[in-house]
Amino acid sequence: MVEESLLPIDGEVFLFRYKITIAYDGTNYCGWQSQASGLSIQTLVHKALTTVLRQSTPVFGSGRTDSGVHAKGQTAHFDASEIIDPSRLRLSLNALLPADVRILQLDPVLPDFHARFSAKSKIYHYHLHLDSVIDPFVRLYRYHVFGRCNIDRMKEALPFFLGTHDFTSFANEPVRTGGPCGKVRTLYHLNLIEQKGGIRLEFEGDGFLYKMVRNISETLVQVGLEKLPPNQIETIFLAKDRRAAPAAAPPQGLFLMEVKY
Amino acid sequence: MVEESLLPIDGEVFLFRYKITIAYDGTNYCGWQSQASGLSIQTLVHKALTTVLRQSTPVFGSGRTDSGVHAKGQTAHFDASEIIDPSRLRLSLNALLPADVRILQLDPVLPDFHARFSAKSKIYHYHLHLDSVIDPFVRLYRYHVFGRCNIDRMKEALPFFLGTHDFTSFANEPVRTGGPCGKVRTLYHLNLIEQKGGIRLEFEGDGFLYKMVRNISETLVQVGLEKLPPNQIETIFLAKDRRAAPAAAPPQGLFLMEVKY
Repeated sequence: MVEESLLPIDGEVFLFRYKITIAYDGTNYCGWQSQASGLSIQTLVHKALTTVLRQSTPVFGSGRTDSGVHAKGQTAHFDASEIIDPSRLRLSLNALLPADVRILQLDPVLPDFHARFSAKSKIYHYHLHLDSVIDPFVRLYRYHVFGRCNIDRMKEALPFFLGTHDFTSFANEPVRTGGPCGKVRTLYHLNLIEQKGGIRLEFEGDGFLYKMVRNISETLVQVGLEKLPPNQIETIFLAKDRRAAPAAAPPQGLFLMEVKY
Repeated sequence: MVEESLLPIDGEVFLFRYKITIAYDGTNYCGWQSQASGLSIQTLVHKALTTVLRQSTPVFGSGRTDSGVHAKGQTAHFDASEIIDPSRLRLSLNALLPADVRILQLDPVLPDFHARFSAKSKIYHYHLHLDSVIDPFVRLYRYHVFGRCNIDRMKEALPFFLGTHDFTSFANEPVRTGGPCGKVRTLYHLNLIEQKGGIRLEFEGDGFLYKMVRNISETLVQVGLEKLPPNQIETIFLAKDRRAAPAAAPPQGLFLMEVKY
């Protein structure tokens, strides 16, 4: 339902903006963003849109996800030169895309909507498998931690990350553009939920620096393995030095769950 | 703890029998049974056992699973010439096996135990995805059914399969050896459970003929899609002809869940 005043006048190029919500198994891709080598989700969606809409249709994501990282609710936007039927276009795109990439939703949005800059917060989940035997059916979706993990100690460490901090010690280079300036970010929620075979860490924040979720997750694992005392996290923050914190947890445990607007 | 009288006398070859419970993602394998071409789970386990026990150690499964079929509780047995520590052997085997094949349990059993011939019943689950959009994370573990499925009609069809029947119309050639004679089998339970995105069919029976679960599952799908009336199943049984029933449902929806002894 587009108001008459919003329809293009003769000769004027008018664009209709759409938001898509995408789920993907990141196992076989180089990540969201198109790159020189490797196949990206962005490239696949761009190509599918270009085929269906019969003109080059670039797609802008809410942010990158790394190679091997999964998404259950990545978002992106694109512009079309005519009004489209969202449910028919969704069907056509899913018919063209491989089965490990699915368009879950396709909605018309106002022309000032931007998948990245309009985002209010993002939710990531990181899954840890703690049983000695990995489950073959989730091996591509969990970080298998060897050794005994003290979950109570991990819970003690969670509050140190909450709130507004300079996350320099938990951010790899290069810093992503967009979002709040510098390396100061706010983490609204960080919960540890026990689940079959292990736990998941639920993050919600106003923005996440490069590898920030994976760096925090591995720090929490090191706390759980009793290689790091929980209050050491304060010292790591104060160092403002990436080398002060442990290396990143592997990508396959990470899911981008939702982008809130 | 082996009684002294069970220990071998000089020169006597004495064998200790062990039962293993195995989970595997069947996506990348030609099935349980070793074959001329393709990699089988049986071959992998045989090789791993042979490496750890330093002598050729064949392994006997409860039955075949086809290419692409999964297992959460396949069982098998093997003999060792000395007493082994089950938890250490399990660790060694899992270290040698690929991550999509896991030994869940390893237990000593009496010498007359046989993974196939001692089995009392087997439980299989078949998973159907009924939403229009497949979930990328379960695409390898569900049969994606297109079209509207009438679940109430499927439930009406379930009782026709229960009990003791000649399952000729639901069995592909070749008939597997072992288990009860001919093509008469008893289905103890057949339940339809609604789950996220679709349903699963839970089968328990004294034995299953080649492709029997997949043939029954596809027949139920055809009933759900209203291409077959539920009472047609009686006619299909009476025909005793494989051509009377629909083709088999695809392998990726099928899981061997448990073998009961």
